[in-house]
Amino acid sequence: MPAVIDYINQHRQRYVDELFALLRMPTISADSTKKQDLVACAEHLARHFTDIGLNAKIEKTPGHPIVYAEWLGRPGAPTVLYYGHYDVQPVDPLELWKTPPFEPTVKNGNVYARGSSDDKGQFYTHVKAAEAYFRAGDGPPVNIKFLIEGEEEASGSNLDNFIAGNTKKLACDHIVVSDTAQFREGCPSLCYGLRGIVYMEIILTGPNRDVHSGEFGGTLDNPANVLGRMISKLHNADGKVLIDGFYNDVVELSAVEKAEFARLPFDPEEYRVSLDLPQLFGEKGYTELERVWARPTCDVNGVYGGYMGEGAKTVIPAKVGAKISMRLVPEQDPDSIEKLFRAYIKKIAPPTVRVEIITHGKARPVVVPTDSPALAKAREALRRAFGAEAVLMRGGGSVPVVETFKQELGVSALLLGFGLPDDALHSPNEKMSLEQFHRGILTSAHLMDLLAR
Amino acid sequence: MPAVIDYINQHRQRYVDELFALLRMPTISADSTKKQDLVACAEHLARHFTDIGLNAKIEKTPGHPIVYAEWLGRPGAPTVLYYGHYDVQPVDPLELWKTPPFEPTVKNGNVYARGSSDDKGQFYTHVKAAEAYFRAGDGPPVNIKFLIEGEEEASGSNLDNFIAGNTKKLACDHIVVSDTAQFREGCPSLCYGLRGIVYMEIILTGPNRDVHSGEFGGTLDNPANVLGRMISKLHNADGKVLIDGFYNDVVELSAVEKAEFARLPFDPEEYRVSLDLPQLFGEKGYTELERVWARPTCDVNGVYGGYMGEGAKTVIPAKVGAKISMRLVPEQDPDSIEKLFRAYIKKIAPPTVRVEIITHGKARPVVVPTDSPALAKAREALRRAFGAEAVLMRGGGSVPVVETFKQELGVSALLLGFGLPDDALHSPNEKMSLEQFHRGILTSAHLMDLLAR
Repeated sequence: MPAVIDYINQHRQRYVDELFALLRMPTISADSTKKQDLVACAEHLARHFTDIGLNAKIEKTPGHPIVYAEWLGRPGAPTVLYYGHYDVQPVDPLELWKTPPFEPTVKNGNVYARGSSDDKGQFYTHVKAAEAYFRAGDGPPVNIKFLIEGEEEASGSNLDNFIAGNTKKLACDHIVVSDTAQFREGCPSLCYGLRGIVYMEIILTGPNRDVHSGEFGGTLDNPANVLGRMISKLHNADGKVLIDGFYNDVVELSAVEKAEFARLPFDPEEYRVSLDLPQLFGEKGYTELERVWARPTCDVNGVYGGYMGEGAKTVIPAKVGAKISMRLVPEQDPDSIEKLFRAYIKKIAPPTVRVEIITHGKARPVVVPTDSPALAKAREALRRAFGAEAVLMRGGGSVPVVETFKQELGVSALLLGFGLPDDALHSPNEKMSLEQFHRGILTSAHLMDLLAR
Repeated sequence: MPAVIDYINQHRQRYVDELFALLRMPTISADSTKKQDLVACAEHLARHFTDIGLNAKIEKTPGHPIVYAEWLGRPGAPTVLYYGHYDVQPVDPLELWKTPPFEPTVKNGNVYARGSSDDKGQFYTHVKAAEAYFRAGDGPPVNIKFLIEGEEEASGSNLDNFIAGNTKKLACDHIVVSDTAQFREGCPSLCYGLRGIVYMEIILTGPNRDVHSGEFGGTLDNPANVLGRMISKLHNADGKVLIDGFYNDVVELSAVEKAEFARLPFDPEEYRVSLDLPQLFGEKGYTELERVWARPTCDVNGVYGGYMGEGAKTVIPAKVGAKISMRLVPEQDPDSIEKLFRAYIKKIAPPTVRVEIITHGKARPVVVPTDSPALAKAREALRRAFGAEAVLMRGGGSVPVVETFKQELGVSALLLGFGLPDDALHSPNEKMSLEQFHRGILTSAHLMDLLAR
């Protein structure tokens, strides 16, 4: 171990340089013009795995390729599967980026780049820990498998199909996923729960063309007016979601979990100020952490329609739409929630417009056991790398593959996130702390050592 | 007169060709990249007026130029001022145009092109009538002035300033504005009333960046959710506008006007089908014509914010907005309505978001006397050109200059529209009937003759 840790410390700057090479690749999976950039990134990663000492292969899919690499040189030792994704979110609104999203730029110890925290700078910690074991010794103390996909930020079933079709190849004792955030800086964290999601879109059509708001206004129900009325019916004044049956299967938090949440160093005022909000808001009767980790939500992710340019145009829009997603908690079922949403939208849509409802994606909420030996080892690895006690937390987002792993491979993933809450995932100016990146690599090296025992 | 009418009939096709040259110019006043195209169009028009026999001049403004032309060769005869605008609406959504907006295309006797009906194909009727008088005789029987501006479709005060500063030059006995539509085909029409407008925009800001809807959803009031709630508070279920004091100054229609509206050949079912609407809708207690001509409205002209691209992106938007305009009727005052709107928006905005309110434009509603001798002559000119009795109607749109003329020059304009209700003004596939264009020229020639007597 000391040689491995020394190697990681000595090559700290080169590891950062290599991460930057990865960050320069504009791997936006939702953008069809970037297809070749994703292929190039997958090839780059496969070459890198081979250079380090693993057997790597690019697995083609109907969409973007999957990179799979393995080293099974420790017969009898446990096998650890590392999951990550090399694709990134779109960058719009581009004008709000202070530095170009694909030119990694260091400021105050952070690297700013799209994908720095989500997820290139996170899964790469395990790649670099493995390298250290190969270069400073005779390889890792455990068998290792890497599954790095290119479609996490785009909806699609290609990874699920690949996992279902390769359960033998992917068989393992532990799974490590680094695609979540720490509770806060100085608070190394293990995430034991994630919310699910159902992502929908509704499109309302009124007249067969945009019409002049003077010549026609007053004779018809404006789809944009209707959209507002419908959105207003998603919640009551207390922030409760009004979709019929929405809360039926929600498991209330236990008193123990509530108490644990309350012990975490969370300051609502500091949080409010960090977002520059006049005031926080959410479902009445729950704290912020309870609401974001253990209560379901319904949020409009985007609205569009009619004249959206500068200045004024006097039209009544023919078509308007809203992207609307719901975050789910145990035991809400995404398929049932989708049905309830569709039924509710049909119920609240007036007869004056036509309504189309589209499903963009679904994922089940997940909570993993907090008393497993692997989880205890992960806490110890974090303690060694960060010099602080790790906290147990949940996340408000979704990592759908965790549920797939559970179902197909029978293994609950360790959610070992090295990001920070202000990393601006999915937002302009995404960043990753280089200190956390370094400590992540150390954590991964310690975890391999502990899991081998 | 017979020689003039003969000339118009003989040169019918050339007149159309000349209109097409005008329609090919992409004179979108709201698009700053088209500035030079507007200058070119103004120069083209000035040359054309000079060729016909008028004294023409390009009047520069801080914005797009005004074309002014006059011929005062009939001392003692009345003077007629013709108003029109050579600028056009933006063309988006471009993908919905069946033929390119600036390549005039003839189908079924209509020319499809942006600006064909609004307003190039309308004001040009008077230019061609004037030409016929010059070429088939010794000039028009009245003194004529043309005021053709380039900023009608963009908000701005340049024309108002020009009129206010040139009241002597523009002095006249009659004003003719052809920028409205006929009631329907076969129903030549005189418009005696127009609605006013107040065009606003509200912008709501929540968090200081787009945030991940999983990591943050539940802790803050989503500005897109809030926008929906606020839009829903603009109307009650009966279609009444809820802005406090909105109806205070509205003059109710007289029983006589209601009866006149009811006599017009309007079929709600035919209207509904023409717009492909599931159902008509509007303020309870009023007919469609009453609602669109004599009742104020409040319409969302556009909504935007968050993720508006294809597929899904899990953000809570930092900023969302809505363009909202109100159509006004006598005696609503645009300045007062703007104040009431601002106060109401502030009242219904929750403390969880920041609100910005922008004013884009305002115009006063106008109703002109229906018993003037000039109006009687206009009806007679229409009867001669169309072979049918003209109806008196109102319009739901706004032509702000009409009020300016009344105030600055003391003359009520004749609103002599040759468009048709399905011309798709401000929409994709705008068109003008070539038959109506021709009859418009004949009407203008007859009107000059009748006004001279």
